[in-house]
Amino acid sequence: VIFYPDHLDLSGERFTVTYRLVGDEITAMERAKDICVEQTVEFPADLVPPGPIREQIFGRIESFSSLDDTHYQAEISFAVEISGFELPQLINVLFGNISIKPGIRVESFRLPQTLLSAFKGPRYGRQGLRVYTGITHRPLLCTALKPMGLSPRQLAELAYQFALGGIDLIKDDHGLANQSFCPFEERVSRCAEAVLRANQETGRRCMYFPNITSPADILLKNAHYARSAGAGGLVITAGLTGLDTMRSLADDDGISLPILSHPAFIGSFVTSEEQGISHYALYGQLMRLAGADASIYPNYGGRFSFSKSACCSIIEGTCVDMGHILPIFPAPGGGMSLGRIPEMNACYGKEVIYLIGGDLHRQGPDLVENTRRFVEKVEEEVKRAEGT
Amino acid sequence: VIFYPDHLDLSGERFTVTYRLVGDEITAMERAKDICVEQTVEFPADLVPPGPIREQIFGRIESFSSLDDTHYQAEISFAVEISGFELPQLINVLFGNISIKPGIRVESFRLPQTLLSAFKGPRYGRQGLRVYTGITHRPLLCTALKPMGLSPRQLAELAYQFALGGIDLIKDDHGLANQSFCPFEERVSRCAEAVLRANQETGRRCMYFPNITSPADILLKNAHYARSAGAGGLVITAGLTGLDTMRSLADDDGISLPILSHPAFIGSFVTSEEQGISHYALYGQLMRLAGADASIYPNYGGRFSFSKSACCSIIEGTCVDMGHILPIFPAPGGGMSLGRIPEMNACYGKEVIYLIGGDLHRQGPDLVENTRRFVEKVEEEVKRAEGT
Repeated sequence: VIFYPDHLDLSGERFTVTYRLVGDEITAMERAKDICVEQTVEFPADLVPPGPIREQIFGRIESFSSLDDTHYQAEISFAVEISGFELPQLINVLFGNISIKPGIRVESFRLPQTLLSAFKGPRYGRQGLRVYTGITHRPLLCTALKPMGLSPRQLAELAYQFALGGIDLIKDDHGLANQSFCPFEERVSRCAEAVLRANQETGRRCMYFPNITSPADILLKNAHYARSAGAGGLVITAGLTGLDTMRSLADDDGISLPILSHPAFIGSFVTSEEQGISHYALYGQLMRLAGADASIYPNYGGRFSFSKSACCSIIEGTCVDMGHILPIFPAPGGGMSLGRIPEMNACYGKEVIYLIGGDLHRQGPDLVENTRRFVEKVEEEVKRAEGT
Repeated sequence: VIFYPDHLDLSGERFTVTYRLVGDEITAMERAKDICVEQTVEFPADLVPPGPIREQIFGRIESFSSLDDTHYQAEISFAVEISGFELPQLINVLFGNISIKPGIRVESFRLPQTLLSAFKGPRYGRQGLRVYTGITHRPLLCTALKPMGLSPRQLAELAYQFALGGIDLIKDDHGLANQSFCPFEERVSRCAEAVLRANQETGRRCMYFPNITSPADILLKNAHYARSAGAGGLVITAGLTGLDTMRSLADDDGISLPILSHPAFIGSFVTSEEQGISHYALYGQLMRLAGADASIYPNYGGRFSFSKSACCSIIEGTCVDMGHILPIFPAPGGGMSLGRIPEMNACYGKEVIYLIGGDLHRQGPDLVENTRRFVEKVEEEVKRAEGT
């Protein structure tokens, strides 16, 4: 009777995942029971006799309730040991095989301290990034180096102008990789130098965040290069590299730079409410657990299709209590404009990074002046809001 | 006029992606035009004057045709240089930011030789895996070590019995990570030893494939451990580690083991026809380009929801002409049973790996005998089919 484990001495500590399930009550309950098995033993449940595997390894339905006639919500708990206290396997338990089944969405998760303590989380977080940049009284302001096709010299000139104009953070567009017309090392060294030069003129502390998304076997080398070239942080498309690659960068004391996570590639997880992972859990909780200091996502009302409530839920995920895992900045971007600052300020308040790319070019040919206007506009809006 | 590049001397070689677009003709054409910009410059198109960026960096619509009143298909080409000849950026061009927009699905892609030559692809492929295993006349047969909760000693006993029974490949269940009750190194060394011991008795060449999905900073160490312990191959959930991590493992001459890719976590890409990546492109072309020698996916009619036509499309993706990139095995699994072998044989023929897990336990308590029956049944079915 091989299904009685030799020894299985688990702590009894469990983590909990909230799933949204599509279907009538019977179908939804079947899905919940299926999650308990599929995410753990992946084995015909009827072949597992009563005993330790069924009691300790199977997921456990902690609650089950109706959202409406065709949607239910289940809280399912798993023994912390199943995660192996490693991020890839933790994510695999949250949404591994069941990602291939319809009608299941991860809404949120709660990890007890025993499991949280396996993760360092973001190195800086909101507060650390404020100390690092020296900006305490207003949102942080970020722009992107683009369009693709420009040379490192030209991108460095853009960076110089943005920095002169008073922007706080300048990131590579996430499509800037190691192209022949814009090689990684030349771009990073030129842009970092340009930003430092501007800082010497302005007395400010603008930071350059190169895009570090690159092949697995050279990513760490690139991160070290960026650091030694004077980069102030890193951008990484964690969906492309794997979330745990971002985690390993964040944990690396030899790098020690703040990290912006980019949302590309994994949009399919959030395009349907009927399936996938919620905005809250993916761009909020998971990016944060995996070490991002700020999570970029497409703002509502821009050229993407996130709703305002989806964006608000991401904000919640960036700061919900997760023990020692620091709150991080939400970083809405994607087709934003200066004209929307008052409205965005009303929604986001101060604890946000505003990411404005193309619109800074739209205001006229003088990028320094355009950037100044952006900073002033945000400063004014913060003062106005505080005065009221 | 910063939008005129210093120098942009591209080869003119382009790769092509076929997208399925949701909407009436006008909407679908807007989506196609948007892809050309969003996947490259991410910049307001109206701010880019006629010139090199517009001509060489923007994607180009090569064809646009109606599938039905609300679905269109567009072939869009991109300069090969935009990929940087690196897998993460290539995938980013295929489906980066547009993954966050609704109504766009990657159907397939075609890479010219200049771009294909940047990738080694699978080290073994179908033919290499046949030479490696010595099985040439029938499908390869694979089972999985499960359920989670058993000790390394118990899993090794299972592996021993499967190997005695004549199975070709034995893989870890993909949820076996480095749990306290089943530590990676002990499991791998015990299971590898058990399979080698069985091989000495049978004279066969059964291979053990441990699950190598693990944190980014120890994955390579684990792979080396597995190799030195006598593993015959590796299983990796490429969606969790990043596809490029699998690519780097496949390319590593110090590892040189065949790789099975597991489909978990990234199911959200294929759950809707209206969005995401097709089965063909994700579990066929991309897994193959990223170095998998076999691509595991849930078989139709099992406990997952893939259709028969989706499964057939994956087979096509595993063997469509991709230059020097070897054809790989489709490896359908997930709730399969012995009773389905005749039907599956009719569908898949010989160029397949059959993955049967739980059902081998269902046939009775003697796993050696159950495995023997599985092998015999497949042998008989192949002979029967060849006789007709």
